[in-house]
Amino acid sequence: MAEKKAVLVIGAGDATGGAIARRFAREGYIACVTRRNAEKLAPLVAQIEAEGGVAHAFGSDARKEDDVAELFRKIETEIAPIEVAVFNIGANVRFDIVETTARVYYKVWEMACFAGFLMGREAARVMLSRTPAPRGSIFFTGATASLRGRAGYAAFAGAKHGLRALAQSMARELGPRGIHVAQLIVDGAIDTEFIRETFPERYKLKEQEGIVNPEHIADTYWMLHNQPRDAWTHELDIRPWMESF
Amino acid sequence: MAEKKAVLVIGAGDATGGAIARRFAREGYIACVTRRNAEKLAPLVAQIEAEGGVAHAFGSDARKEDDVAELFRKIETEIAPIEVAVFNIGANVRFDIVETTARVYYKVWEMACFAGFLMGREAARVMLSRTPAPRGSIFFTGATASLRGRAGYAAFAGAKHGLRALAQSMARELGPRGIHVAQLIVDGAIDTEFIRETFPERYKLKEQEGIVNPEHIADTYWMLHNQPRDAWTHELDIRPWMESF
Amino acid sequence: MAEKKAVLVIGAGDATGGAIARRFAREGYIACVTRRNAEKLAPLVAQIEAEGGVAHAFGSDARKEDDVAELFRKIETEIAPIEVAVFNIGANVRFDIVETTARVYYKVWEMACFAGFLMGREAARVMLSRTPAPRGSIFFTGATASLRGRAGYAAFAGAKHGLRALAQSMARELGPRGIHVAQLIVDGAIDTEFIRETFPERYKLKEQEGIVNPEHIADTYWMLHNQPRDAWTHELDIRPWMESF
Amino acid sequence: MAEKKAVLVIGAGDATGGAIARRFAREGYIACVTRRNAEKLAPLVAQIEAEGGVAHAFGSDARKEDDVAELFRKIETEIAPIEVAVFNIGANVRFDIVETTARVYYKVWEMACFAGFLMGREAARVMLSRTPAPRGSIFFTGATASLRGRAGYAAFAGAKHGLRALAQSMARELGPRGIHVAQLIVDGAIDTEFIRETFPERYKLKEQEGIVNPEHIADTYWMLHNQPRDAWTHELDIRPWMESF
Repeated sequence: MAEKKAVLVIGAGDATGGAIARRFAREGYIACVTRRNAEKLAPLVAQIEAEGGVAHAFGSDARKEDDVAELFRKIETEIAPIEVAVFNIGANVRFDIVETTARVYYKVWEMACFAGFLMGREAARVMLSRTPAPRGSIFFTGATASLRGRAGYAAFAGAKHGLRALAQSMARELGPRGIHVAQLIVDGAIDTEFIRETFPERYKLKEQEGIVNPEHIADTYWMLHNQPRDAWTHELDIRPWMESF
Repeated sequence: MAEKKAVLVIGAGDATGGAIARRFAREGYIACVTRRNAEKLAPLVAQIEAEGGVAHAFGSDARKEDDVAELFRKIETEIAPIEVAVFNIGANVRFDIVETTARVYYKVWEMACFAGFLMGREAARVMLSRTPAPRGSIFFTGATASLRGRAGYAAFAGAKHGLRALAQSMARELGPRGIHVAQLIVDGAIDTEFIRETFPERYKLKEQEGIVNPEHIADTYWMLHNQPRDAWTHELDIRPWMESF
Repeated sequence: MAEKKAVLVIGAGDATGGAIARRFAREGYIACVTRRNAEKLAPLVAQIEAEGGVAHAFGSDARKEDDVAELFRKIETEIAPIEVAVFNIGANVRFDIVETTARVYYKVWEMACFAGFLMGREAARVMLSRTPAPRGSIFFTGATASLRGRAGYAAFAGAKHGLRALAQSMARELGPRGIHVAQLIVDGAIDTEFIRETFPERYKLKEQEGIVNPEHIADTYWMLHNQPRDAWTHELDIRPWMESF
Repeated sequence: MAEKKAVLVIGAGDATGGAIARRFAREGYIACVTRRNAEKLAPLVAQIEAEGGVAHAFGSDARKEDDVAELFRKIETEIAPIEVAVFNIGANVRFDIVETTARVYYKVWEMACFAGFLMGREAARVMLSRTPAPRGSIFFTGATASLRGRAGYAAFAGAKHGLRALAQSMARELGPRGIHVAQLIVDGAIDTEFIRETFPERYKLKEQEGIVNPEHIADTYWMLHNQPRDAWTHELDIRPWMESF
C-alpha cells in the first residue's frame, strides 16, 4: 500500500463533487466519496471505474463527529493515506430574516460550515502525522456569499463566511507546517441538474459557456494541489466570462 | 406608556454591555439588560438607578429561541417598545485546530453568532411592526476576527464572520424598510476586569489611553442610533491610537 | 493667537466641503477653505460669517506642491494652527476603458489622489511638530469606488483606491504618533446642485431622505475629530437608508 | 502569419517578467519583451532562443503613451497578434510620509499604475478588434500592497491599489466582451538578484522553498491564460508555504 494515495470528497453528491473525484481518480488517486446515502453514489463509482479509476463510496453524515472520525479511520487504515480532502457541501437557501427559523439557520450552518470544520480538523490530524513531515491539501468550495451578506441570505452567507474564516485560520496555522489549505470561490451558476430544472432560462447560457462546468472547478482543484510549496494560492475566484460582478 | 422607549442589551455582563445600557439610560431609555444569571446584573441596575435611570435585569439564555422570544414579548408588552437592540456577546477563545473540539466549535458559534441571529430576528419582527412605519436600530459588536481568520481562531473567527454576514444581510434587507442595522468592529483590548487580571502589562497602556474605554464604545452606539436616515453608517472600526493594525 | 485653531478644507467648492467648513466654524474653528478660484468661495465665507464664524478663502491649486506648501505656511504663520485637515476633492467620471485618454486618467488621479497626498503630507508635517506632542486630524472623503472597481471607472476607482491606500498607510504610521487619520466612504448621491440638475428623478428621493445631506457628512467629520484617542475610527461608510448596496 | 501569436511582457527586466516570457515562448508564443533599455534584454532573448523559442526585445518607456502605442502597432503589424499582455512593473519603495517627495509619489504611480493603464488600454483596443470575436488575456502582477496600506508605503500601496482598481474595472467591462483580465497578488519575497543581495538572510529560505520561484508565477499566468471561459479567475494570491499573512 506504500504508494497508494486517496482523495476524499465530502459532498460528492452534486456535479462538482463528482467531477473533483473523477479528476483525481484519473490521476491515480483512490477516490473516497461521501454523501448521506451511499447508494446514490453508485453511478459515480461506476463512472470512475469505467474511466479506469478506483472509487469507494461512503454513506456518512458529514455533520456527525463520530461519522467523520470513523470515515477518516477507515480510509487511512483500510484504503490509503488521504492526500487531499475536499469539502464541497453547500446549502444555498433564501429566506427573509423574519421568516428564517432557528432550525433553518442552524441546519444551514451545520451543513455548510460545521461539517467543514469536522472534515478540516480530521484532515489536519492525519496530515500533520505524516512522516517524514506533514503534507497534504485541504480545500473548501466557497461562493459569493463567502464574501458578503445579501438581503435574504443571513443563514447562507453566515455559514459561508464561517467556512471562509475556517479556511483562512487553517491556512495561517497549517501552511507553515506544510499543509496547503485553500478555498475556491465560485460565483455564478454551476452546470447541474438543479440549475437545468429550476432556472431553464439561465441554463441556456450554457450554449455560450455562461455557466460553470464542474470539470473546470475540478481542474482548478487539481492545479491547486499540484502547486509547488513556494507558490501556494489560498483563495481564488471562478466565474463565467459573462457573469457580472 | 406612549412615550416610553427601551434599549435592549443582550450580553450586558461585561464592561461594554454595561456601558451601553448606562449610556442609553442616561438619555431616557429604559435599559433592559440580560445575561444568563440575572442576579449578577444587580450592580449594573443599581448603578443605572443611581444615575437617575430605569433598568430591568433579565436572566435569559440568549442561545435559546424560546427565551429570546419570551424576553421580547415581556419587554414589548410590559415595559416599552424596543427602539434599540444591541448584541454584545463574544466568545474569544484560542485553540489549535486539532485541539478544537466539536463542542467548543459549536458553543462558540452558538454564543457569538446564533444568539445574535435570534436577537436580530426578534428585533426585526417588532421593529417592522411599528406604526405608522417600521423604525429602530439593531447593532452588533464585532472584533478583528470579524474581518479575517488567524491561526488558532477558526472557531472564534468563524462565529464573528457569521455575525458580520448577519449584520450585512440584515442591513441590506431592512435598511430600505426603515431599520438601521450596523456593526462596530472593536480592534484592541477593552478596559475590562479580564484584561486587567490576565494581561497586566497590556493593561498598563490604559495610562496613555492605549486600551478602549467601554464608555466610548457606548458613545459610538449612541451616535449611530441618532444618525439621520439619509446618512446611516453600517460598519465602522474602533481602536486605540497606539494599536498597530 | 494661543488658543486659535483652524480647520482646513481643501475642495470646499461643493456642498460637502462647504458644510464641513461651516460645521467646524460653528464650533469655533477658523475655517480655511480652498478651491482654484477663491472668488467663488465668497458666498461660503459670507455664510460662515453670517453664522458668527470666521473664514478665509484661498485660491489654491491643490495639485501643485508649491501652492499647497504655501497654503500651509500662510495659515500656520498668519492665522492659526491647523487642527483638522480635510481633503474633499472628487473627480467622478465614466469612460469606457478604450475611450479613457491618458490625459483623463492622469487628471483624475492628480485631482482625487495626488492632491490628497500633498495635503496629507503637509498636514502630517505641521501636526507632527506640535508641542508638547503631535496632535491633529487628517480626513479624506471616499466613495464606493474606493472599495471596488467597476466597468467604466478605471480612472475614478484607481484614484479613489489610491486615496484609500494613502489614508490607511498614514493612519498606520501616524496613529501611534498621535495623529488621527480617517476616511469616510460616501455611498449614494449627495444633495448637490449637480445631482439636482443632472439626475432630477434621483433628486426627488430627497423628499424621503433618499440622498445624503452634506450637513450630515459634516456632523460625522465633527464626531470623528472629537473621538477620544482610545477609540479612534479609521474608516466608516455613510449611505441613505434606501440605498441598495 | 495566420497562426502566429505573441505574448507581450512589459517589465521583462526582472526575474518574474523573464520567466513569464520564457514560459509562453516554450508554448509557441513569440515573446515580445520590453524595458527601457532594450540592450539589457539581450540575455533573455538569447535564453529564449536557446530554448528553441522566438523573442523580440523592445526598448520602450512604459510610461509614455506614444511609446506604448508604437509598441503595440509594431508588434501587431510586423510580428503577430498579441494574445496575452502582461504588466509586470513594480516600484517597491518605503518612505515615511513626511519624507515622501511629490516626485517620488508621482514616479511610483507613473511606473506601477499609469503604465499599467497604458498597456491595459492598448491591449483592450487590439483584443476587442479581433475577428470573429474579441479575445485575449490581460494580466497584472500585484503585491500585498494591492490589498492594504502600511506605514511607509503610501506611495507604493497607492499605486498598487490603483492598479488593482484598473484590473477590476477592466475585468468587469471586458469580461462580458470576451477578454480575460486578471491579477496575481504575490505575497512574499521573489527569488531575484535583488533579494539575494539585499536580504541574504531571507534569501537563505530558498533552501526550503521559502521564497517564490518566478517560474511558478509564470506557470500560474500560463494556467490563467488557458482557463476555459466558463471558469475564469480574476484574482488569486501566491505566497510561499512559510509566509505568515
